[in-house]
Amino acid sequence: MEGKVTSTAGAVGYLGPGGTHSEEAARRLYPDNTRQLRPYPRIDAVIRAVTDGEIDEGLVPIENSLEGSVTITLDTLAHDVELVIAGEIVWPVKHQLLAKPGTKTIKEVISHMQALAQCREYLAASYPEAEQKAAASTALAAQMVASGTGESAAIGSAAAAQVYGLEVIAAEIQDYDHNMTRFIVIKRQPAAPGPGEWKTSLAFKINGERPGSLCEVLHEFASRGVNMIRIESRPARTGLGVYIFFIDIEGSLAEQSVGEAFEAVKAKALWFKNLGSYPVLLKG
Amino acid sequence: MEGKVTSTAGAVGYLGPGGTHSEEAARRLYPDNTRQLRPYPRIDAVIRAVTDGEIDEGLVPIENSLEGSVTITLDTLAHDVELVIAGEIVWPVKHQLLAKPGTKTIKEVISHMQALAQCREYLAASYPEAEQKAAASTALAAQMVASGTGESAAIGSAAAAQVYGLEVIAAEIQDYDHNMTRFIVIKRQPAAPGPGEWKTSLAFKINGERPGSLCEVLHEFASRGVNMIRIESRPARTGLGVYIFFIDIEGSLAEQSVGEAFEAVKAKALWFKNLGSYPVLLKG
Repeated sequence: MEGKVTSTAGAVGYLGPGGTHSEEAARRLYPDNTRQLRPYPRIDAVIRAVTDGEIDEGLVPIENSLEGSVTITLDTLAHDVELVIAGEIVWPVKHQLLAKPGTKTIKEVISHMQALAQCREYLAASYPEAEQKAAASTALAAQMVASGTGESAAIGSAAAAQVYGLEVIAAEIQDYDHNMTRFIVIKRQPAAPGPGEWKTSLAFKINGERPGSLCEVLHEFASRGVNMIRIESRPARTGLGVYIFFIDIEGSLAEQSVGEAFEAVKAKALWFKNLGSYPVLLKG
Repeated sequence: MEGKVTSTAGAVGYLGPGGTHSEEAARRLYPDNTRQLRPYPRIDAVIRAVTDGEIDEGLVPIENSLEGSVTITLDTLAHDVELVIAGEIVWPVKHQLLAKPGTKTIKEVISHMQALAQCREYLAASYPEAEQKAAASTALAAQMVASGTGESAAIGSAAAAQVYGLEVIAAEIQDYDHNMTRFIVIKRQPAAPGPGEWKTSLAFKINGERPGSLCEVLHEFASRGVNMIRIESRPARTGLGVYIFFIDIEGSLAEQSVGEAFEAVKAKALWFKNLGSYPVLLKG
C-alpha cells in the first residue's frame, strides 16, 4: 500500500498519517527540515521500507512506560528484516481530547487502543457514557472526528489538532504523568561510534526445557558486571510456550565486558540476533 | 457500561459480544449449559465483574502463540484486583474470512488488530488492495460487516458467521497452524486441589538497579529444580524502565519445592503477588 516510491537520500519514515506522536518525535529529532519525513500507514511498513532502501531510516515506537512493548516492532525486527537499532529517543506522551469546534455532546471517543487505555481513568470519570472506539492511530482518530457528525472526540497529539482543524477541549488527559514512549531509529548500517550514553540490544532463543536455562544466560551479563536494563519475551512463533528473549544492556559492544558477555550468550543460544549498539539521542 | 446486574450463582463472564473466540472456549468448557454465560464489552470488565461478585468466574485470554501476552489481562490482575487464576484452557484459534452472502468485491477487511496480524500473509497474498480496519473484537468486526454496504469482510470465528448471518468465504486463513490462545479462569477463591497437570503463576517487582538481580531471583527456582515455563515483563507504571515480572512455573504450591521457591522469591521481592495454582482444564 506504500506504492512504488523512489529512494530519497536521508529520508526518514515514521508512522503516519501527519499528526501522530511519531511525527512529533521525528520533527524534534530533525528540527531544521534537513531530512525529508515520510509517513507510512503501519509500523511494519516503516521498517520494511528501510530494508527495501526506500528510506534511509525509520523512527518507530518500541516501548511505552504504561503499555509496555510495541510488539509489532519487536516481532518485525526479530523475524522479518536484517536491520539494526542506530539510536534511541525517549518522548513524553501528552494526550489531548480533540473535537470539532462547537461540539456540545460527546457520544463516542475514538483513538488508538493504547491511547484509550492510557486515559482510562480520565474517560471513566469525565465521559462514563461515551462509547470507546479503536482506530489504527491517534491521527486517524482525529481524522475520523474531523469528518464526523460532531458528537465524537478523539484522543491525540496537539499536532493532530492543527493538522485536522480540531479544538483541544481538554489538555493532557493521560492518567499518569510519567507516560513516556521510547522510539528507536532503525537503519541498515550500525551507528558510528560516538560519545554519550549507549545501549546494546540483542534477541535470542534458548533451550527452555530444563530449569535454569534462562538464568545461565543472564549470568553471562551479571558475572561481568554488565547491567541488563530490560528483558522481554515474545513468541518464537513455533508453538505455544516457545519464546524469543529481547534484552537491552547498558553500554556499547565496543566495551570489552559487553563484547565478551555478548559472545558468551551467542555461544549458548539456539538462535541469536545482534540488534545493534546505539546512542541515546534525545531524552524527554 | 455493564449496568447493574444481580449476581447469578455460577455465572461465567467472557469477552463478548456473542461469537468471539472467548465464547467458543467458554462453551467448550461448559458444554452442558449448566452455567450461565454472560458477555462483557472488554476484558477488564470481565475481570472487574468477578471482583464485584457480579459473576463467579471470568474466562479471559492471557496469551496467544503468535501475538504474545494479552497485556490488559496481566495489567488488570497485577494492579487493579485481588483475584486468582483457577484454571487454564489452551484453545486452537481458527480464523475465517466472513462476508455477507452475495459479496463480490472486498474493499476492506475488518477485525481485531491481533486477528489482522495473524492473517497478515494471507491478506497480503489474497487481498493486497483491501484496506485493513481495526475493530474492538472479531465479533464486533462481523457485526460491522453484517450491517455494512457489502464490500467488506471480517476475520472471525465460525460462531460469528452463525450469529451475524455471514458466509465463510475462506476457511482457516491464519498464517500459522499452531495459532493457540491460552485462556485463564479468574476467580475470587483459589482452585481446589485435584489431579492432573498444574501450574502456578506469580508477579513480582525487584530492585533492578544492579547487575544480576533478576538472575538471583530466577536461581531460587532453578536451584530447586522448579521449571519456569514463562517469564513476561510489564511496566510497573512508575516510570520508563521499571518492570513487574510475571512468571509461570510447573507444579502446584502444594508441592514442597514449589512452595519453598515461592517463599524465597517473595522474600527477595520489593512487591509480590500470588496469582494462584491451577489445573490445566482443556488442551487443544
